[in-house]
Amino acid sequence: MTAARLVPPPTKGHLSVARLSRFWYVACRSSELGRTPLRRTLLGVPLVLFRARDKVGALLDRCPHRNVPLSLGRVVGGELQCKYHGWEFDCSGRCTKVPGLEGEVERDRRVPACAVREQDGFVWVWPELDAQPTREPFGVPQVESDAGYATVVREVSARASLHATLENALDVPHTAFLHRGLFRGGARNEIRARLKRRRDMVEIEYLGEPRPEGLAGRLLSPSGGTVEHWDRFFLPSIAQVEYRLGPETHFRVTAFGSPVSDFETKLFAVAQFRTRLPARLVKLVLQPAALRIFAQDARILGAQTDNITRFGGEQFMNTELDLMGPAMWRLLKQAESGDDGAGAPDAFEIEKEIRFWA
Amino acid sequence: MTAARLVPPPTKGHLSVARLSRFWYVACRSSELGRTPLRRTLLGVPLVLFRARDKVGALLDRCPHRNVPLSLGRVVGGELQCKYHGWEFDCSGRCTKVPGLEGEVERDRRVPACAVREQDGFVWVWPELDAQPTREPFGVPQVESDAGYATVVREVSARASLHATLENALDVPHTAFLHRGLFRGGARNEIRARLKRRRDMVEIEYLGEPRPEGLAGRLLSPSGGTVEHWDRFFLPSIAQVEYRLGPETHFRVTAFGSPVSDFETKLFAVAQFRTRLPARLVKLVLQPAALRIFAQDARILGAQTDNITRFGGEQFMNTELDLMGPAMWRLLKQAESGDDGAGAPDAFEIEKEIRFWA
Amino acid sequence: MTAARLVPPPTKGHLSVARLSRFWYVACRSSELGRTPLRRTLLGVPLVLFRARDKVGALLDRCPHRNVPLSLGRVVGGELQCKYHGWEFDCSGRCTKVPGLEGEVERDRRVPACAVREQDGFVWVWPELDAQPTREPFGVPQVESDAGYATVVREVSARASLHATLENALDVPHTAFLHRGLFRGGARNEIRARLKRRRDMVEIEYLGEPRPEGLAGRLLSPSGGTVEHWDRFFLPSIAQVEYRLGPETHFRVTAFGSPVSDFETKLFAVAQFRTRLPARLVKLVLQPAALRIFAQDARILGAQTDNITRFGGEQFMNTELDLMGPAMWRLLKQAESGDDGAGAPDAFEIEKEIRFWA
Repeated sequence: MTAARLVPPPTKGHLSVARLSRFWYVACRSSELGRTPLRRTLLGVPLVLFRARDKVGALLDRCPHRNVPLSLGRVVGGELQCKYHGWEFDCSGRCTKVPGLEGEVERDRRVPACAVREQDGFVWVWPELDAQPTREPFGVPQVESDAGYATVVREVSARASLHATLENALDVPHTAFLHRGLFRGGARNEIRARLKRRRDMVEIEYLGEPRPEGLAGRLLSPSGGTVEHWDRFFLPSIAQVEYRLGPETHFRVTAFGSPVSDFETKLFAVAQFRTRLPARLVKLVLQPAALRIFAQDARILGAQTDNITRFGGEQFMNTELDLMGPAMWRLLKQAESGDDGAGAPDAFEIEKEIRFWA
Repeated sequence: MTAARLVPPPTKGHLSVARLSRFWYVACRSSELGRTPLRRTLLGVPLVLFRARDKVGALLDRCPHRNVPLSLGRVVGGELQCKYHGWEFDCSGRCTKVPGLEGEVERDRRVPACAVREQDGFVWVWPELDAQPTREPFGVPQVESDAGYATVVREVSARASLHATLENALDVPHTAFLHRGLFRGGARNEIRARLKRRRDMVEIEYLGEPRPEGLAGRLLSPSGGTVEHWDRFFLPSIAQVEYRLGPETHFRVTAFGSPVSDFETKLFAVAQFRTRLPARLVKLVLQPAALRIFAQDARILGAQTDNITRFGGEQFMNTELDLMGPAMWRLLKQAESGDDGAGAPDAFEIEKEIRFWA
Repeated sequence: MTAARLVPPPTKGHLSVARLSRFWYVACRSSELGRTPLRRTLLGVPLVLFRARDKVGALLDRCPHRNVPLSLGRVVGGELQCKYHGWEFDCSGRCTKVPGLEGEVERDRRVPACAVREQDGFVWVWPELDAQPTREPFGVPQVESDAGYATVVREVSARASLHATLENALDVPHTAFLHRGLFRGGARNEIRARLKRRRDMVEIEYLGEPRPEGLAGRLLSPSGGTVEHWDRFFLPSIAQVEYRLGPETHFRVTAFGSPVSDFETKLFAVAQFRTRLPARLVKLVLQPAALRIFAQDARILGAQTDNITRFGGEQFMNTELDLMGPAMWRLLKQAESGDDGAGAPDAFEIEKEIRFWA
């Protein structure tokens, strides 16, 4: 309407948003899904999850009759019953009953459905509607059951894209600033980071990293020692951080990213660990710290999203310290254009090695 | 920006929204309109209603001078005075005074106005601006004044289109589910529904309907008996439900729909009834039930609207039980394309008869 | 989607919004800017203000690395440090440190910056990014320091365009209506208003104005007397009201408008006055009245903005009483098309004289 508008310098209009529907995602924890249907949104599409006898259904959350959410309904026998007119649907989406039309043969009345797996305490959904999955969900890595490992599972959310959320989860350089006092800090060392990649994953190995300073470090390894540290990304949405400090201490957090919508992401994190200290004590100390760290991450990610929205897109500037983000983005784009990393994995190549101070 | 977006199955992009401006609508109850001007929105257009001496004005709610809402003003003598600079307007929209320019001849300073009728305790507005109505408002049906009828008037609102709100008001099959326990239920009977239509209305007569079960039924007809039941729709926005149970019990609810905007609808309902029980007792029991029923309806209608918005349009699937909705929609579309049902009413034809279980 | 929509009469689609980026604006008061960076938005562009040693920086509020707001960061030495990864920037926007890359030569890493002046207790910003100002900020008019003047500074906000907010601040006719009882009213007099203009300002002088009635009037001039009254607008956003009542009483309010965004405006008002009464008493009585008057103005301006938004644009109707608004708009449009009123000021011409009743 008026010219000469003051505008910020032009952004690329780019958004690091990938929408990969031909992959499995965690929709909820198994323990959340009881008698009451749950509404869960995946990649922007509202779904209703329900448990009918020994099966789990995941249907588009819209009754084909008058389009009300099926998640307002209830489970009756093995069917999900719509709250408005009582239409009933089975786990495959087939309409098995329209009250009032009892005698009638059912025709093509149905609601689109998603494939579902229940595995490792999670309900996994393949968000492509009415489609056959082409693989199985990513398994939570097993630990030797007699080796004194403890496991903690937590769900957190960020108002940010899947890519930004996972980049943050796998980013080393921010910890000294955003989490000042809680994580890292102190004397600085030269560290080498070596990036390897396959068609479906990226791994960064850190060499020369000292025992972390701060509270976390003292707990992870009371006697100091060398650190082995790997950060990994697996298509489409899995972030994994693994630490070994000497022969006894082993930490591994596997976070399953669930893209609610373009700028809303859930993480279902499974932390597995073994230390010389009792697991109960480690949980007692680490859990509040981990939740506080994630709250700081969620806040900065939300502020990042707000700024990207306000400026009409991203305009990022990478340095060579930004190893993981660009590598993840390359894999996501490849997957979006059809290469989902399935089939024979190609060689695991060392692609890059950098040195930095941390 | 990115391809391969997961989208729900294509909707028709259809919305059951008709915008009929050449009809009368209830804007408010007469008792609401006192000394203070009221802002009321009809078909998305903000209007100011005011009572100036013995007349009621309905003007576009925007002062022509600096565009502030005239509804912030006050009535001075027979005029509505703008709060900002004191410009005054009469019921026809003519500007009669600009303070400071006392001596000046008024020219074409005016604000667009709507025709108004005050009738049956309601203020009716013809929302087409600066236009002559081509008929009179729908009259509330009269009852024999000596026959012990009681009347109750209520206003309710739904976040839904006029069509969805009226379809819900005239829909029989949903009552057993959405209002489980409050209305209907129990043993199921085969019922016949016969749909008649004229150019300006639709009527469904229900035959073979037993006395309603549940609380409402026991009150309506303590001794059981046969039910006579009609549901009616009159252009553009009137829903009527009538029950007769034997010679003594008679219920009739006439609901005047007022389209605030595409997805916001008010209903001004006039319930007229006569039973063997004292009217006060009937009101005492039925009113809370009626309000609870409407709250359930409003909730499901709002959820339906949210889903339609989220999915970018409706994708309804009718069965032969959906008699009233499609018939109403046909009349609304005819009216939108110019056939307002006025003139000699055509024959009242039986169009369809179905059987169902309820 | 559907035709025959009822719409209000067509508006011009016009908005009185000018976006002048090549001028100084007040961003905040000097006293607000301490150790903590401040986010301030000017003409829709988010900026971060910070005080680093003896300088003030104003940068685009977006870290070039991952686009988070720099205003979440902190000042370290003479630099602003980003909260996320600790990148540091000086007042000119240059990135002086990327933690982890200590040894590296800095290249073209920077964030766009605005020119800043700190003057008269305000932080002034030239919102055009990375540009050289072509003049200096408007100075607060000086008063004779030995003449017993008092000064009060206040910041207020309106949800309205800069033009609407300043038109309201300099509008005489509304005071009798919007501020009924607080300002003006009583017997009406014929007043002459004489509009003069230069290329960078407009002045209206009021002749024949009686001592104001009401509370304000009785305080301003207990003994009555003649009023001298000028309203002035200076490009791009300054409104000034000046009253002299006899030799002793002198009031001057200079309000610096700061366009936060198209429909959000701040005013930084400097009131300078001298009366026969003690300044403390005058403040005690006038301040609550002034704040109440501005609250009424802010409310009507917000309602005006809402209506303009709802109707999709303005449709104003001027009379000859609307002297200042159209004259201001003419200057703003000239400035938008490049004529900023700088250079040799042209003659100060009497353009118009009107008579009205107030």
